[in-house]
Amino acid sequence: MTPPSTLCFSTLRHESNTLGGMSQLHLLSPRGFRAGAVHAGIKSTQTPDVSLLACEIEASAAAVFTTNKVVAAPVVIGRKHVAKGKLRAVVTNSGNANACTGTKGERDAVRMCQIAATMLDTDPHLILPCSTGIIGHQLPMDKVEFGIRGAFEYLGDSEEHALRFADAILTTDTKRKVASASFKLGREQVIISGACKGSGMIGPRMALHATMLAYLTTDAKIAAPLLRKLLGAASEASFNAVTVDDHTSTNDTATILASGLGASVASKAEVAKFTSALNEVCQSLAYQIAADGEGATKVIRIEVTGAKTESDAKLIARSIANSPLVKCAMHGNDPNWGRIVSAAGYANAKFDPAKSVLKLQDTTVFRRGVPSEFDRAAVSKSLASPEVRVQLACNLGRSSATCWTCDLSKEYVTINADYHT
Amino acid sequence: MTPPSTLCFSTLRHESNTLGGMSQLHLLSPRGFRAGAVHAGIKSTQTPDVSLLACEIEASAAAVFTTNKVVAAPVVIGRKHVAKGKLRAVVTNSGNANACTGTKGERDAVRMCQIAATMLDTDPHLILPCSTGIIGHQLPMDKVEFGIRGAFEYLGDSEEHALRFADAILTTDTKRKVASASFKLGREQVIISGACKGSGMIGPRMALHATMLAYLTTDAKIAAPLLRKLLGAASEASFNAVTVDDHTSTNDTATILASGLGASVASKAEVAKFTSALNEVCQSLAYQIAADGEGATKVIRIEVTGAKTESDAKLIARSIANSPLVKCAMHGNDPNWGRIVSAAGYANAKFDPAKSVLKLQDTTVFRRGVPSEFDRAAVSKSLASPEVRVQLACNLGRSSATCWTCDLSKEYVTINADYHT
Repeated sequence: MTPPSTLCFSTLRHESNTLGGMSQLHLLSPRGFRAGAVHAGIKSTQTPDVSLLACEIEASAAAVFTTNKVVAAPVVIGRKHVAKGKLRAVVTNSGNANACTGTKGERDAVRMCQIAATMLDTDPHLILPCSTGIIGHQLPMDKVEFGIRGAFEYLGDSEEHALRFADAILTTDTKRKVASASFKLGREQVIISGACKGSGMIGPRMALHATMLAYLTTDAKIAAPLLRKLLGAASEASFNAVTVDDHTSTNDTATILASGLGASVASKAEVAKFTSALNEVCQSLAYQIAADGEGATKVIRIEVTGAKTESDAKLIARSIANSPLVKCAMHGNDPNWGRIVSAAGYANAKFDPAKSVLKLQDTTVFRRGVPSEFDRAAVSKSLASPEVRVQLACNLGRSSATCWTCDLSKEYVTINADYHT
Repeated sequence: MTPPSTLCFSTLRHESNTLGGMSQLHLLSPRGFRAGAVHAGIKSTQTPDVSLLACEIEASAAAVFTTNKVVAAPVVIGRKHVAKGKLRAVVTNSGNANACTGTKGERDAVRMCQIAATMLDTDPHLILPCSTGIIGHQLPMDKVEFGIRGAFEYLGDSEEHALRFADAILTTDTKRKVASASFKLGREQVIISGACKGSGMIGPRMALHATMLAYLTTDAKIAAPLLRKLLGAASEASFNAVTVDDHTSTNDTATILASGLGASVASKAEVAKFTSALNEVCQSLAYQIAADGEGATKVIRIEVTGAKTESDAKLIARSIANSPLVKCAMHGNDPNWGRIVSAAGYANAKFDPAKSVLKLQDTTVFRRGVPSEFDRAAVSKSLASPEVRVQLACNLGRSSATCWTCDLSKEYVTINADYHT
C-alpha cells in the first residue's frame, strides 16, 4: 500500500541520502538512541516481545495517553513518570496489556521501570512503561524481567536494532510500521523517526489523547513543554484521526524522546520546520495503522472541507469513517454516496446536504442535495484500489479535517469472533 | 427468537382472548382503523410496496422523526402535517426512500398525500407520508399513484389486512414485526398495536427523535399533546435504544394514531396504564428490529444500572452496543469482558472500573477492576443463545438504561458490501 501523497517518503529517502551512506532513516538514526528486543515467551509466536528504547542522556520527553476511563497499569504509571518532561527510556512488552490487573498490575508496571532503571543505572521515574496484548491477565514477571535484562544486553543503534524494536511491539499487526523525516536547521540535519503498532481496537482519542503505541525519537534540542504541545497537536491530526473500529483502547500511548544532541528548536521558524516533520512522521504512522487494520483491504482517506468549525469537520469525518455501512460499501467497491452523506448528517455537526459536494476518487457523485450523473462502473472500478479518497465539501465555513480508516471485511469478523480472551 | 421477558406477549395473548373470538390482536384491532396494501412494482420482489393505514375519523396523532440533517422529503412534509396533532391516514411506499431527491422529491411527497386525501375525501394535510428504500432516486409516481389507489380499494380491518400492511413496509427485513398490548380502563378494553420495519441502517435517534418506520394505532381517546409526550418517552426507551449499525437513517419515523373511539386517557392512573402498554408495544417492536438486524444471529440486551445520570447510562449502554469488537465477540460466543468494560470506559460518561460489576448471562465475569473466576466454557456455551444478556452495574448512582443490539457476522458484510446504490 502506498503512503498518502502528502507524506514525503520520497523527500525522506532523498534527504537520508544526503546524510551519507545510510540506506534509510530509522528509529535510531537520531543521535543518542539505542534499542534492544528479545523474545521472552510472552507472545506465543517466536517473535520479540520485550523491548527497550533508551537515550544515552536524559531526553526531553512528552507523551499522550488514552482517554478511556479504564486505563491499563502502565498508563497510570507512565503518566506520572513523564509528567516532569524527562525520560531516559521506554520499556515495552507485547502479548499482555497489563490492563484490569488491579494493584498488582500497577506494582508490576513500576517493577518494569525499576528493572530497566537498574540496568541503565538511572532513576525508575525516568522510565516509561508500555504494555499491549490481552486484557485481564497478570504479567508473567519472571519472563518480563528476563526480557528486560535481555533487551538491555542487546542494545544497539543499527538499523537492525531499530527494526527489531519495531517488530517487538506488534500484536495482531501484519506489518511493521515505521516512518522518518529530516530537515535542516542551518547546516545541521535534524531527524524525527517513529515506530508504532496498531491493527484492531483502534479508535484512539489521546489527550494531551490510542492499543496503539507509538514511539518517536529525535535528536533536536527542544524544551519539554513545547515538545508536549507539538506532540499533542501532531497526535490530534494523525493518531487521533485514524479509526479501524472506533474502540478506544485501555493502553494507547504515543511518546517522543528528544535527545538534544542536535540542533536547537526554539524560534518560530525552527518550530515550524520541526512541526512539519513531526506531523509527517505521525501521519505516516497513522496511515500505516489504517492500512494494516484488521481485515483491511484498503485505506479510506476522508477529507472534509468547508465545515463551520474544526470540531464539526472532525465530527463529520469520523462519523463517515465509523459507519459500518460506508466501510462495507467501500469493501464492495460501491459508490454509495447515500451512506456517506447520511453519515455526515448524523454527525452532530452543522451540515446541509443542499450546500454539499461529495467526490469519490475525484469524481463528483453528489452535489447540492441530489446525486450527480456519473459513470458508476468507472467509479466502482476506481474504488478497487488500495487507497480510496472521499472528499466532502460542506461549503459552510473554512474548517477542514482529514481522517483515515479501512474497509470492513468478513476477515475482520473472523479475526474478532475467534480471538478469545 | 423469543421476545424479552419484560414484554407481555403472554399477557397480550391472554387479554386478546377476553375480547372474544379474536385469535390475536393486530394493528387494526383498535376501533376505527383500516389498512390496504398492494404491489405496485416499486420493489423488485412480488411483495406489497404501497400501503395505506386510515382512521375512519380524524385521529389524535403524534410522530417522531429522524434527527439526521439529511432528511428525506416525506419527513420534511410529514413534520408539517402532524404538527397540529391530527391525522386521517398514513401513506407509505417501500423500495424507494425519496431521499436526496430535491424539490421534486418534496412535491412527490405532497402528491402522495393529495392522492390519498382525494381517495379518503379529506384534507391532504391530514396525511402522513413515509418512504423507505434506496436513496437518491426519484419516486416512480405513476406506480405510486397506482399503488395508493389500489391500497384504497383494498382497505379492510381484518387480521389479513393488518399483516399485509406490516409486510408492505419491509425492505431488507427478513421478518414481519408486529406487537400489541391491551389494558382495561373501567370496564373498557383499550388496545395499542403496532407494526414496524428495520434491519439495516439502524441507529435511530428520533427527537421529539429511525430507516426504521413504526406505525402505532390505538382506540384510546387521548389529547394530541399528551400523545406526543408519551410517544417521545416511549421511543426514547425503545426505538432510540436499538442499534444495528448506529447509522441514523434519513427517513426514520414513528407515528401513533388514536381514533378516540374507546375509553378516555386523561387521569394520572389512566395515563400510567396507557404508558405501560405503549412502552410494551414499542419495546417489542424495537426488540424485533434488533433480532432481525442484518446478518444477526442473536439479540444482545445491554442493561446498565447504577450510573450517575440517565444520560451516562445511555451513553455507556450505546457505547457497548456499538463496539464492533463486542459484537464480534458475541458472534463468536466469547465471554470477552475486556472489550465490554473498555467500551464503557470510552463512552464519555462517568465510569469507574474499580466500582463496576459485569455479568454475562447472569454470571459475574468482572468485579471491581479485575476479572472474576468463572467457568469460561459454561459461559461461552450460554452465549450461544438467541438472546444474550449483558448487565453492567456501575455503582455510581441510581440511573439505568437498557439497549438492544445484535451480533456482527460475516453475513452483515455480505449484505452491505453487495447491496448497491
